[in-house]
Amino acid sequence: MKTYADLKLPVRTLLGAGPSDVDPRVLRVMATPVIGFFDPEFLAIMDETMELTRFVFQTENEFTFTLPATGTGGMETALANMIEPGDRMVVCVNGFFGARMTEMVKRLKGELVTVEAPWGQVVDPADVERALKGGKTRVVAIVHAETSTGILQPLEEIARLAKEHGALLLVDAVTSLGGVEVNVDKRGIDICYSGSQKCLGAPPGMSLITLNSRAQKALASRKTEVHSWYLDLGLIQRYWAKERFYHHTAPASLIYAMRESLRLVYEEGLEARFARHELNSTALKAGLEAMGLKLFAEAGHRNPTLTTIAVPDGVNDANMRGKLLKEYNIEISGGLGQLKGKIWRIGLMGNSSKKRNVIDVLAALEGALRSEGLKAPSGAGIAAAEQAYKG
Amino acid sequence: MKTYADLKLPVRTLLGAGPSDVDPRVLRVMATPVIGFFDPEFLAIMDETMELTRFVFQTENEFTFTLPATGTGGMETALANMIEPGDRMVVCVNGFFGARMTEMVKRLKGELVTVEAPWGQVVDPADVERALKGGKTRVVAIVHAETSTGILQPLEEIARLAKEHGALLLVDAVTSLGGVEVNVDKRGIDICYSGSQKCLGAPPGMSLITLNSRAQKALASRKTEVHSWYLDLGLIQRYWAKERFYHHTAPASLIYAMRESLRLVYEEGLEARFARHELNSTALKAGLEAMGLKLFAEAGHRNPTLTTIAVPDGVNDANMRGKLLKEYNIEISGGLGQLKGKIWRIGLMGNSSKKRNVIDVLAALEGALRSEGLKAPSGAGIAAAEQAYKG
Repeated sequence: MKTYADLKLPVRTLLGAGPSDVDPRVLRVMATPVIGFFDPEFLAIMDETMELTRFVFQTENEFTFTLPATGTGGMETALANMIEPGDRMVVCVNGFFGARMTEMVKRLKGELVTVEAPWGQVVDPADVERALKGGKTRVVAIVHAETSTGILQPLEEIARLAKEHGALLLVDAVTSLGGVEVNVDKRGIDICYSGSQKCLGAPPGMSLITLNSRAQKALASRKTEVHSWYLDLGLIQRYWAKERFYHHTAPASLIYAMRESLRLVYEEGLEARFARHELNSTALKAGLEAMGLKLFAEAGHRNPTLTTIAVPDGVNDANMRGKLLKEYNIEISGGLGQLKGKIWRIGLMGNSSKKRNVIDVLAALEGALRSEGLKAPSGAGIAAAEQAYKG
Repeated sequence: MKTYADLKLPVRTLLGAGPSDVDPRVLRVMATPVIGFFDPEFLAIMDETMELTRFVFQTENEFTFTLPATGTGGMETALANMIEPGDRMVVCVNGFFGARMTEMVKRLKGELVTVEAPWGQVVDPADVERALKGGKTRVVAIVHAETSTGILQPLEEIARLAKEHGALLLVDAVTSLGGVEVNVDKRGIDICYSGSQKCLGAPPGMSLITLNSRAQKALASRKTEVHSWYLDLGLIQRYWAKERFYHHTAPASLIYAMRESLRLVYEEGLEARFARHELNSTALKAGLEAMGLKLFAEAGHRNPTLTTIAVPDGVNDANMRGKLLKEYNIEISGGLGQLKGKIWRIGLMGNSSKKRNVIDVLAALEGALRSEGLKAPSGAGIAAAEQAYKG
């Protein structure tokens, strides 16, 4: 009979596109015994988790909680609940995740209108305006931080346009929430969702969502039922609300972890957290450029939580990443879709956003590139990063 | 500024309808650092988890893995992938979860045909046969262990009928898998799903699914796309298969936990595990009856993983359960739907199925009932249970 050994895994430094490193405090609460999903003590934890979720989204929205599904599940939940078959939806596509949204909208039988921009560049609000003028639009959907390209999309102008045209603004904040300002209320975002495992530093498996009163009104006035019972926000809300409707068995351990991660964000403070992500990212980018590497994303719109680099000519993408993982225990990510093999993605998110990781990854990259035959100037990356930290 | 305290929760004994008590070994692996979902070391853990999942389903089906959603998500995934709009589906309803299936089938726009039986009784195969004769049926769906009633449904005859009529048999094994024999291959079940948090004793948040070649062929020959991108089995399978298609970020900690729980099942052995569930359940039922309580489910078809009891006249359901929780730290469940306030549900599942829990819950019930004014004969329940253990 085959035997299965004790779980034994290497400890990696997670500097890819997510998950990011989980803080030991968060790992520890995962080992807390599970209790029932209607236990008053558990319901109190849910209420606190909702408060902390509002804090990180910077919103007063009542309708703000976690979902028992990954970030991709959060994406589908947001889309599916906000449109009905035949509804016109403008989806901005400048990367893999915008494109994924269009796949979902097709299945939801929405009238899909795409606004495209080259991968690695921002979406132009003028293009969004043109699309909005093309017909009565229910929702404009856009990715705040495109995980596939390293772009951070400005939202203000698009939010204004959506409002002006009576459309709801739906924002994917999977790679931004908790690392860079999302600020749902200030920006007038109607529906926003994120994942647990990126800048929030919780383990993967959950998503977070918030809906303002306009979005809630739209949900309440649907003419058709949401396609999915499991992802029906109205039903899920009734579990998080005082009614405590039985919809699903809450993933207790993940909610413990989410609460602890959000508590860490709360203790650090959003301003300090955003500044930390900005500083480490600036140092990393300085180091990469000093090593002679080319940043991929459009200058002026580079995401402080995820940096993209063009794979240098003559370097094998998979070999390099394999070397970083096996020899240095560092994970970085490759490209997705049309960028497969062409870029690397280095995330400095949540607990992974720290000076030591910046220095380590620069040192590892230099070593690995050198062994691939590339002549990187010795120590230049680290020196430039150190300089950036000095300010 | 409000402060949020360290997570502090009571340790309960979970004897409700799920979640059940999680073994300390499983809790411990949850605290293992998360690694990337394409990390070769993680992929190896996924492969082992698939093997162990096949073991517990007692199947050779290649297509056997976990889903990043709770048991309810597993239910929807199974239904949504197996039928297309307009497909005729026979759903057996003798409790809350059969009824939930019908809700989902309606949203999926299937042609719904229900076969009903009173809650607390088994479904009659003759009724299934009549329904099958009514038209060409794509799928017959049935709950193996109805969590809302305490019934264990015989499957052999219904499996034979489904096959005879060219329909696929879809079985909900949420409350049976790992506690009582499911045996997918022997019984000829085409699609089977379960949840992590019941007889398998893992934390809630995951489901498990298996499809045989007939079901896989049906999936591959769909004319329409599955309604949900997130719950699309064909896409999820491509992540578990050698292709390693990027569909979602695997909930690493829950997969660690699932593997460890399945390892515990594997070490115990299925026969021994089923016998343990049977013995503890027999002792509990003997004790409850000796206390003068009336079992709810039809005799001869009582589920060894979950026992249902009629709430005695004059006893307040919510008070009693509140007392068990607060004074004894024991969770039992109340009734769902039409049985709300009318029955209690005591689960002895996975790690919760042990003699100490049987004795404890009988003692607690006696104490609580007495304080509610009911005259239970002193010690009779425990004595009868002890007698049952002697055999």
